[in-house]
Amino acid sequence: MKISVLGCGRWGTFHAWYANKIGHEVTLWGRNKSCRMAELMKTRKNEYLTLPEDIILTSDLKAALSGTDIIIISISAQQLRTFAHTIHDLGLSITAPFILCMKGLEIGSGKRLTTIMTEELGREVQTAVWVGPGHVQDFMQGMPNCMIMASSNIPLTHHLVDIFSSSLIRFYYGKDLLGIEIGAAAKNVIGIAAGMLDGAGLSSLKGALMARGTHELSVLIKAMGGNKMTVYGLSHLGDYEATLFSLHSNNRRFGEDFIQGKPFIKLAEGVYTTEALMELAGQLHVELPITHTIYEIVKNKKNPQEQLKQLFLRSTKVE
Amino acid sequence: MKISVLGCGRWGTFHAWYANKIGHEVTLWGRNKSCRMAELMKTRKNEYLTLPEDIILTSDLKAALSGTDIIIISISAQQLRTFAHTIHDLGLSITAPFILCMKGLEIGSGKRLTTIMTEELGREVQTAVWVGPGHVQDFMQGMPNCMIMASSNIPLTHHLVDIFSSSLIRFYYGKDLLGIEIGAAAKNVIGIAAGMLDGAGLSSLKGALMARGTHELSVLIKAMGGNKMTVYGLSHLGDYEATLFSLHSNNRRFGEDFIQGKPFIKLAEGVYTTEALMELAGQLHVELPITHTIYEIVKNKKNPQEQLKQLFLRSTKVE
Repeated sequence: MKISVLGCGRWGTFHAWYANKIGHEVTLWGRNKSCRMAELMKTRKNEYLTLPEDIILTSDLKAALSGTDIIIISISAQQLRTFAHTIHDLGLSITAPFILCMKGLEIGSGKRLTTIMTEELGREVQTAVWVGPGHVQDFMQGMPNCMIMASSNIPLTHHLVDIFSSSLIRFYYGKDLLGIEIGAAAKNVIGIAAGMLDGAGLSSLKGALMARGTHELSVLIKAMGGNKMTVYGLSHLGDYEATLFSLHSNNRRFGEDFIQGKPFIKLAEGVYTTEALMELAGQLHVELPITHTIYEIVKNKKNPQEQLKQLFLRSTKVE
Repeated sequence: MKISVLGCGRWGTFHAWYANKIGHEVTLWGRNKSCRMAELMKTRKNEYLTLPEDIILTSDLKAALSGTDIIIISISAQQLRTFAHTIHDLGLSITAPFILCMKGLEIGSGKRLTTIMTEELGREVQTAVWVGPGHVQDFMQGMPNCMIMASSNIPLTHHLVDIFSSSLIRFYYGKDLLGIEIGAAAKNVIGIAAGMLDGAGLSSLKGALMARGTHELSVLIKAMGGNKMTVYGLSHLGDYEATLFSLHSNNRRFGEDFIQGKPFIKLAEGVYTTEALMELAGQLHVELPITHTIYEIVKNKKNPQEQLKQLFLRSTKVE
């Protein structure tokens, strides 16, 4: 199979490496002026892995999109709309399915990433998502994991699972695309909350965070028309180990650094997701206490210790 | 309020310390010949805490049970039937409610601990359970947590929550006693599985373990007539941080040591719970893949690496 991977960050390079490893012909695209692509072209290495010589590296987007069977996109979620628009403007007739490998919701609109694809590329575009637990660092050490592939087209989902399954990654088929996208994005918010609890010396409350975090997202997903149980599967709860407990988790680390007043290079994706979820909560009149607390701390600079304790320890509740 | 705590192990002494701290008159009972009680009477200390002088220490069970308002039991789950029988044989007329603070199911019968209380002490006995996350070590350092109080008598549950709430422990009211007891006991089985994954270098699969572990117990609880959602609350999922990730967790440690062939002093409670759950699964014709795998490894000496990988990585599943 010919696989094109668009995006040459940590996950993009991993997906290229992985698709090559399991026997596919891989093209990896990165922006012309990107330092990362320049470095890969020079050394074929980044901090995480080395790309074999038979992976084609290119900065020609048209070339990467032409004559390929599957297109994997792995860029920042907030850049997807612009990027999809750019693809549209190339005027190619693309029949290959897209797989989105990032987790996020559009800030300002709260829209899902597959919705953005349809809006920018037309209703005939086929888009799946590939989410769930796993860190590049662990995969590169041979640690296997279970992930989830989902789309609104069941035969397509099965086709993609067949193509990408290996002893390193075992796929579950996802049926509730809406729930999976929301849950996958929202786990980064819970990850920030976990990091804040760690930073505040309240790690023991991560148990309550797991129980209440899944609950509040299940309410949101149900209000959006999805299945309230989806959040308890691999896309959200199944990603808690990697997000709430791993030292590799960017969002957890962001929360910990934020609360301890340490400098951070860039906002974690979960910060944008927090805003997008608040947008959705407003639209749907749903309460999201944990998300709201993170919003109050990060955006409105409320006192973190006070906010976190209030969240878990103030009132007695029926379960 | 007069509170008697029966059992002077790690949790029993903590409950005595805690009830005293929040202003109650406390009596702590331990067996006459128990080394722990002898040590406490001599030094008022154990490895975790120091008991204030105003806590009465006794080995006289009749005295501990007389003229008290609430009786907390914190002994090994497998000893409860014999212990309750001993209490019955004292021939006292006890009207004070009991609170059980341990997590387990009776091996051989799969029976819940509140059922054992009723069978041994009569239908008029009032029994609540106090479960959920928290480690004595963390509480003693002032780390707060959320826990859960449940009984089949709602006013009693509220009464007990009022008595035991503090800024250190915030209670949720539990409504589904059956689901709470099964979930609280079963989290120790998932804890052993987590330890085995840690010991096998497969910690990344703890995400999938959380998603699948909650699922299999929700199926069991539903088959038993409980609420399938209870398992996603504090009694089970909310206890995963303390059980699957904490270094203080005995069950996690047991799983890790077992798989690495290290000696262990005694079986973790989760081993008994595994047997009890297999008993229930057989009675109710429910499949419990994770519990079954732990059973195969611990009781039938099957190859752990093979069994664990087979559990998570063999077949592709719909979620």
